[in-house]
Amino acid sequence: MDIHRIEAAAQRLQGHARVTPLLSSPFLDEIAGRRVLIKAECLQHTGSFKYRGARSAISALPEDQRASGVIAFSSGNHAQGVALAARQFGVAAVIVMPSDAPKMKIANTRALGAEVVLYDRATQDRDTIGHDISNARGLSLIRPFDEPEVIAGQGTCGLEIAAQAADLGVTAADVIVCCGGGGLTSGIALALDARAPEMRVRPAEPEAFDDVTRSLASGRIERNASQSGGLCDAIVTPQPGALTFPIMQRLCGPGLVVSEEEAQMAMAQAFSRLKLVAEPGGAVALAAALYHADQLEGDTVICTLSGGNVDRGVFLHALQQYGDA
Amino acid sequence: MDIHRIEAAAQRLQGHARVTPLLSSPFLDEIAGRRVLIKAECLQHTGSFKYRGARSAISALPEDQRASGVIAFSSGNHAQGVALAARQFGVAAVIVMPSDAPKMKIANTRALGAEVVLYDRATQDRDTIGHDISNARGLSLIRPFDEPEVIAGQGTCGLEIAAQAADLGVTAADVIVCCGGGGLTSGIALALDARAPEMRVRPAEPEAFDDVTRSLASGRIERNASQSGGLCDAIVTPQPGALTFPIMQRLCGPGLVVSEEEAQMAMAQAFSRLKLVAEPGGAVALAAALYHADQLEGDTVICTLSGGNVDRGVFLHALQQYGDA
Repeated sequence: MDIHRIEAAAQRLQGHARVTPLLSSPFLDEIAGRRVLIKAECLQHTGSFKYRGARSAISALPEDQRASGVIAFSSGNHAQGVALAARQFGVAAVIVMPSDAPKMKIANTRALGAEVVLYDRATQDRDTIGHDISNARGLSLIRPFDEPEVIAGQGTCGLEIAAQAADLGVTAADVIVCCGGGGLTSGIALALDARAPEMRVRPAEPEAFDDVTRSLASGRIERNASQSGGLCDAIVTPQPGALTFPIMQRLCGPGLVVSEEEAQMAMAQAFSRLKLVAEPGGAVALAAALYHADQLEGDTVICTLSGGNVDRGVFLHALQQYGDA
Repeated sequence: MDIHRIEAAAQRLQGHARVTPLLSSPFLDEIAGRRVLIKAECLQHTGSFKYRGARSAISALPEDQRASGVIAFSSGNHAQGVALAARQFGVAAVIVMPSDAPKMKIANTRALGAEVVLYDRATQDRDTIGHDISNARGLSLIRPFDEPEVIAGQGTCGLEIAAQAADLGVTAADVIVCCGGGGLTSGIALALDARAPEMRVRPAEPEAFDDVTRSLASGRIERNASQSGGLCDAIVTPQPGALTFPIMQRLCGPGLVVSEEEAQMAMAQAFSRLKLVAEPGGAVALAAALYHADQLEGDTVICTLSGGNVDRGVFLHALQQYGDA
């Protein structure tokens, strides 16, 4: 994995993925005690950065292989990214989703033309289901993060951060990235290592699902005790990826861990100060920027707001509980 | 007023105003029955397009005059735009606001460093209050819409629409603009007349405050029966402007009128499909695009989502009532 692969992905995504804005608000600067720049990936197609990696991977498949269709496992954001990218190429997409995934994510994935296969996390084995379908129909598996072309696609977000920050005169900063399996984090880290080497990438995770933070601290892959649950469904993964972890180990600074309460406070701030809808997992980096300022360095912090696919009830609750924060 | 004045404003705004994205969603296209492109001005500094006109006007003042400070009358969005632009130039801003303006708008205006003078719409005369303060302190009045440099500033939004639509291969479309006094509408119309002459600007207004639509139909300035009230506070004005109306008469197509219910349905769609926070008055153009498709022409419609400064309770109500729409 190097910058050339990310640049190649950027070429393939040109005119398809959105260049999302890098936003700010004087009110957020005041809370954080430094300048805060927010990369608004909730404005990406399908409402999260996942479209970048999905389109990158599907566009990199040999044409005859792509024509047979693709399959993905996802609780939601990767599902929607794969569904849209597959539809744009006119190929079939099968998405294997847990039946307890957020309703909006299941509905959107179906509406984007994918065939959704639901399974019960407690009683069924996802991999067996997927393997059977995939073999029967000759589908290509699009992994959510541990796949070079997916990491390269997410890395295009880092190319944009480097260019947009430079336009504002910012070349050094902590860059906090909402982190699940590490696809976005490692992709951005690779891009910034080449384009803005004075920036330092910091993964942000929710409490109880801080496998990357603990793995970076211990130097080996650590697992989460729980495999599901919590508000931050988008970034709950069992452990760092085999491909993403070595990249993060080489390039990323200490992780940051926020509470679900802080994630919801950040959602309320994104609502009132940025006019953006963030999902809990997409708000953890902003939460770290706002509420863990003592663990950051420098006069500017950059954070990803990585997704906005939140069920209405969850959003209403965050606003009602934390809207005055 | 011509395109050169708008181009000059764009020069002065460069590096200050944001180039806001032109967004879309396949789900909105399906509701509208055509392609819908949304100019997300709620992502502009201070949460509405008003910053463009305010910064344009303040930056156009002679330096010695600007140094004495500025004054504005506004129920909220213009107030915040003027407050931020004045602070950026290091000059004083006095904003005369009705005491029943949305709380968030009053609080934000103060937080941006302006001196806010509240008055009671029922018992006090705004102009007398403003005139007295202005004379005593030598402040320059920044009008909300009937001022060439303000219209030119709002027109920069039209320059961006023309360029961004062209990037998508769109050169002809109905362009629906949320319309109060007509500053944004006339500015965009002037810009598109020069840069995208096959586009047609259509003002959108809420029921009971459809003065521009009726004025365009009758050919003379018509007033609204009520001067205040309604959910769409941002775009409630007594009548079209003396400068803006002739421009709209020359360049704009028939107006579109939406209900408050439709504006709130559009807010709910902006939440779920665009991940954007819209205020009611900022959602009327999207409402017209989605729910008045029979009054539009062409296979693409462009609309402004002009502001996102909404009190939490109003937003929660829209989502609770219309979130399943």
